[in-house]
Amino acid sequence: MINVSVIGANGYTGLQLLTLLASHKEVKLAHAVSRSHSQKEITELYPSLLPFAGRRFEDLNLEILAGDTNLCFTCLPHGTSGEICSKLYHAGVKIVDLSADFRYDDVDTYREWYKVEHCDKALNKIAVYGLSEIYRKEIQKASIIGNPGCYTTCSILPLYPLLKEKRISSKGIVIDAKSGTSGAGRKAAEAYSFTELDENFKAYSVATHRHTSEIEEQLSVAAASKILLNFTPHLLPVKRGILSTIYADCIASPEEIAGTYEKYYGKSLFVKPLRQGLPELKYVVGSNYCMIGFTVDPRTEKIIIVSAIDNLIKGASGQAIQNMNLMYGFREDEGLTTLPSYL
Amino acid sequence: MINVSVIGANGYTGLQLLTLLASHKEVKLAHAVSRSHSQKEITELYPSLLPFAGRRFEDLNLEILAGDTNLCFTCLPHGTSGEICSKLYHAGVKIVDLSADFRYDDVDTYREWYKVEHCDKALNKIAVYGLSEIYRKEIQKASIIGNPGCYTTCSILPLYPLLKEKRISSKGIVIDAKSGTSGAGRKAAEAYSFTELDENFKAYSVATHRHTSEIEEQLSVAAASKILLNFTPHLLPVKRGILSTIYADCIASPEEIAGTYEKYYGKSLFVKPLRQGLPELKYVVGSNYCMIGFTVDPRTEKIIIVSAIDNLIKGASGQAIQNMNLMYGFREDEGLTTLPSYL
Amino acid sequence: MINVSVIGANGYTGLQLLTLLASHKEVKLAHAVSRSHSQKEITELYPSLLPFAGRRFEDLNLEILAGDTNLCFTCLPHGTSGEICSKLYHAGVKIVDLSADFRYDDVDTYREWYKVEHCDKALNKIAVYGLSEIYRKEIQKASIIGNPGCYTTCSILPLYPLLKEKRISSKGIVIDAKSGTSGAGRKAAEAYSFTELDENFKAYSVATHRHTSEIEEQLSVAAASKILLNFTPHLLPVKRGILSTIYADCIASPEEIAGTYEKYYGKSLFVKPLRQGLPELKYVVGSNYCMIGFTVDPRTEKIIIVSAIDNLIKGASGQAIQNMNLMYGFREDEGLTTLPSYL
Amino acid sequence: MINVSVIGANGYTGLQLLTLLASHKEVKLAHAVSRSHSQKEITELYPSLLPFAGRRFEDLNLEILAGDTNLCFTCLPHGTSGEICSKLYHAGVKIVDLSADFRYDDVDTYREWYKVEHCDKALNKIAVYGLSEIYRKEIQKASIIGNPGCYTTCSILPLYPLLKEKRISSKGIVIDAKSGTSGAGRKAAEAYSFTELDENFKAYSVATHRHTSEIEEQLSVAAASKILLNFTPHLLPVKRGILSTIYADCIASPEEIAGTYEKYYGKSLFVKPLRQGLPELKYVVGSNYCMIGFTVDPRTEKIIIVSAIDNLIKGASGQAIQNMNLMYGFREDEGLTTLPSYL
Repeated sequence: MINVSVIGANGYTGLQLLTLLASHKEVKLAHAVSRSHSQKEITELYPSLLPFAGRRFEDLNLEILAGDTNLCFTCLPHGTSGEICSKLYHAGVKIVDLSADFRYDDVDTYREWYKVEHCDKALNKIAVYGLSEIYRKEIQKASIIGNPGCYTTCSILPLYPLLKEKRISSKGIVIDAKSGTSGAGRKAAEAYSFTELDENFKAYSVATHRHTSEIEEQLSVAAASKILLNFTPHLLPVKRGILSTIYADCIASPEEIAGTYEKYYGKSLFVKPLRQGLPELKYVVGSNYCMIGFTVDPRTEKIIIVSAIDNLIKGASGQAIQNMNLMYGFREDEGLTTLPSYL
Repeated sequence: MINVSVIGANGYTGLQLLTLLASHKEVKLAHAVSRSHSQKEITELYPSLLPFAGRRFEDLNLEILAGDTNLCFTCLPHGTSGEICSKLYHAGVKIVDLSADFRYDDVDTYREWYKVEHCDKALNKIAVYGLSEIYRKEIQKASIIGNPGCYTTCSILPLYPLLKEKRISSKGIVIDAKSGTSGAGRKAAEAYSFTELDENFKAYSVATHRHTSEIEEQLSVAAASKILLNFTPHLLPVKRGILSTIYADCIASPEEIAGTYEKYYGKSLFVKPLRQGLPELKYVVGSNYCMIGFTVDPRTEKIIIVSAIDNLIKGASGQAIQNMNLMYGFREDEGLTTLPSYL
Repeated sequence: MINVSVIGANGYTGLQLLTLLASHKEVKLAHAVSRSHSQKEITELYPSLLPFAGRRFEDLNLEILAGDTNLCFTCLPHGTSGEICSKLYHAGVKIVDLSADFRYDDVDTYREWYKVEHCDKALNKIAVYGLSEIYRKEIQKASIIGNPGCYTTCSILPLYPLLKEKRISSKGIVIDAKSGTSGAGRKAAEAYSFTELDENFKAYSVATHRHTSEIEEQLSVAAASKILLNFTPHLLPVKRGILSTIYADCIASPEEIAGTYEKYYGKSLFVKPLRQGLPELKYVVGSNYCMIGFTVDPRTEKIIIVSAIDNLIKGASGQAIQNMNLMYGFREDEGLTTLPSYL
Repeated sequence: MINVSVIGANGYTGLQLLTLLASHKEVKLAHAVSRSHSQKEITELYPSLLPFAGRRFEDLNLEILAGDTNLCFTCLPHGTSGEICSKLYHAGVKIVDLSADFRYDDVDTYREWYKVEHCDKALNKIAVYGLSEIYRKEIQKASIIGNPGCYTTCSILPLYPLLKEKRISSKGIVIDAKSGTSGAGRKAAEAYSFTELDENFKAYSVATHRHTSEIEEQLSVAAASKILLNFTPHLLPVKRGILSTIYADCIASPEEIAGTYEKYYGKSLFVKPLRQGLPELKYVVGSNYCMIGFTVDPRTEKIIIVSAIDNLIKGASGQAIQNMNLMYGFREDEGLTTLPSYL
């Protein structure tokens, strides 16, 4: 049994962490930190969190928190998060950081896309990229994890094995991704109001979305060559879930593709290549699953891959808990056994 | 051909007015006023308003506006609206005010529910309540209209004839109303974000919603006795439309009820009592219709009435245009012939 | 550890049962019966049910099923269900029946509203109405449970204590209920297509819905007098959840009302009276909770009660499992600890 | 003033035609034919169609219909439609056929993708493809129009000019298209129920959708070379609208692209290239507009084009009326001036 704390607990990734931690048998919640909602009862903000009835959000007191916390989940904006993680780390707390601050090997790429200088490059060097299925061994020994972005998880998991095994060309990859609105976080903005978004659909940040660089860095590792690709996010009128439709030039048979996925994910608890058909959002939403399906078009020799996750679970808080489980040797699926609700 | 202006044109009632005015054959848009979006192109905010491409929202200049405007639609918060209407009126402009400021005969009721003193009680005395089907004759001669609220239109239209003709008891009326989110207007608020509202449903302002007093004042006129009732608004995860389910003790046969509706609305262009069945939102959304259906429960001797409107059209901007048409002797349905989209 | 089977496993209550049973520590799934999908892999129909990967729906073989099943959940249409339950019961299987066949004490009422003669009146006599919080003691000793309807659970739980303790009048109660579409079950029907229902809202079966009689029978027991009331169901454009707005003449103070709820539900794991505010759908959907809030209107002396449940969980399969837990002395919340997803 | 009839008037394209025809000043509705709903009042099926109150759907009587109809819209399944069009044509009726039967120049392509032999190849030879902006001159002289598919309209309009003017490569084009559910038509099917589709998103018919061949045939004409491309349709949880995200290798500057669109569509009433930004569904739904925006990614030298239409209007019935207007020399936008509702 370890003590965990959540900083930035009032946002949606915080809500999802608390929801999942409530049923996790190996952890106790030490602190739920929220500056903006400090002293408010947790159930006043989220009446669904009944197991925490009577408890309150707290202001951030790093000393107290470091004193009674084994591992801290940080759910803060980039920049801010890195600074707090740096202090926590040096106070002996293990960290799963859900911001972008420890996701990049190359701090120049980070600076270029996030427009800030990294605050602790030494710490960044020892941080491990928390894509659980790809970096399992490194995560098991890590003290600080840069938890991947939601779009990036849904993009890298299906592409990494195919690039590593040279089943597809590394040139001309197109990722057409569609996300639910919770990916934008809890916020007051006209553009995210129900009235503006219901029955609507749009592309945004075309050719400029920051996750592009995170995807490219990881896939360049897989391909052992510099990858540039097109990533286009869209906003779906649904609350949760990301579905990506990926196009690449295929240089393998369908059987070889299936074999590659089997090799990488055949025993995975959460990454599920489908033997037939393509995933839909409802197959995964509510769970920590990533489902992957594909079709090869013999007319154009393109492979079309469809991958799907719950952006708040496998795309954020679920994967964060999975990483904690790996770090502490808990069952990998502890706290993560809830099935997709399908409906 | 008259010149009309819209003040507060950037909100949703403004959007709806501009959308409808674009096809109105008897009017020309003089000014679309928006302080918050002054100088912005109209199509930058609302790309759907292509007939106004190239035109801009303007800041409010009362003198200029009064100089070239025959009739002004004011879409402003209560209090603010009354003050501007007062100036416009005295400058010779006719007014359809979409705020609550000229809806009440009794300014004490207005003060009690809106917590402000009325700014121009003399003007309020000559203002006409703009429920087109009930006050047609007064509207035709009016210079200033207090355009009814959305919930109130959907509540008064089905109840007024039955109370006037004593078909139902004036005691114990319950109005359980459900509205789409556009009724809350264009706003940045966490509580109105897509992520918080989709797949959700809730009651709000229970026993305290301001429209209660507007409904009660009008129905007391109909019944010729003081009416108190329960009005409960709910928020539907749809963009447009209000559907009200109304319960009252019935003291007439179904045939008498139907006959009363026929007497009041048989020739109405927009208020449509159904001969059978009950209205659904999709029967009216997109149009200026109010549809009304009912069932009498012989077990409990209650009548259950269902009424439905588009909150932005018959519940606001459509009725405002209908009132203008009556004031100027235009065809009553000029600019209002778009059918419900059904889908 | 007991063996359970589900008959009618392909429908939505079946899906919900399988989803919940997958994480229940005291049960093993013996058979998932579906005539229409016999021999199909469970994950072909519901790809979310990965823990059952490789297993298939089976045709109904009563002998085999009775031989290796301790308790059977029956999710079949009324009439059909009663006949199969009768056979199962006499073969020694315990039953939680999710149809209407064992919900009524008075088989005349059943016949009047369901238009069929009851198939096994003797068995009906010993069946217990499975509203867990009200009939806990009887359920613990029961062999066959008539699991309540979804609307009825959401209506009876808030009203039963107030009628029993005479806090409200038994005359003139109005229940205005709004349900998500999964309540209609898995079906191919134009009227339930996405295109017809999205952005729509409607009342249906006004003054004639069968659940009226089930609510009245139970509340008449509570009030110790014959109750007739108005129940009006509506169809919300959401997948899951029921929210009921209930109106009654109030003959107690708000404190007395709160005290009555505390007395009946203060220690309940699942029925949660709110100390302040009113429940919204998102506070309960995904969980076995029933949340209850209320307001007393001093102007009209009405109480307005709002109650909310997930129709497939507390309104069907969750309550069915809760009843099984009571019958076998398992922890009451075994398999039912998933929190509402809120988003 | 001409007489028009609609065959297959009960479906969604029929509903949309009737909705639009109700306000068209140059036509009178002769017959609304529906075999499945013959003799039913139109407003019983679609209560929104109040201008047709009292009129009924009729069974098909070709002789009577041909006797008093100038132009007929046929909204029937492929195969069936062609046979009826053949008879109508030879009886002297002009035709706008909304099926696939007269969309192909190459009847072999039609046979390959639709698995039927064309029923009247001679008639097909003289039929004109009804993409109004591309084939305006031919349409003005035509007697029979093959009205384009919804996906195809949204795909061809943005690509045709760029291929014709060699602004993009004709190799490796990817069209990732997302459609609302009304595109599937009025149907009873579990897979299209609200409960299965709300909050869901999926790809379907990947690499096999029939519209691929229609797009390829037209774009091959534009490029003057055989084009093969990838077209991937997806199902959005919205009722109306198609948004396509299109990827191609760009061989021109953004200014040249903009200039090409201006050259082809600068004076178009309905096809609207955006000077900045990208279209969203809500910019077009409810109207006959097709909006087009684009971004060139300098990193990958791809152009990303986003186009949007209302699938039932510009993608079907609106374009059908536009074609009729061209055929008869009516104002091109007669009956088509309704603006997008935006909300």
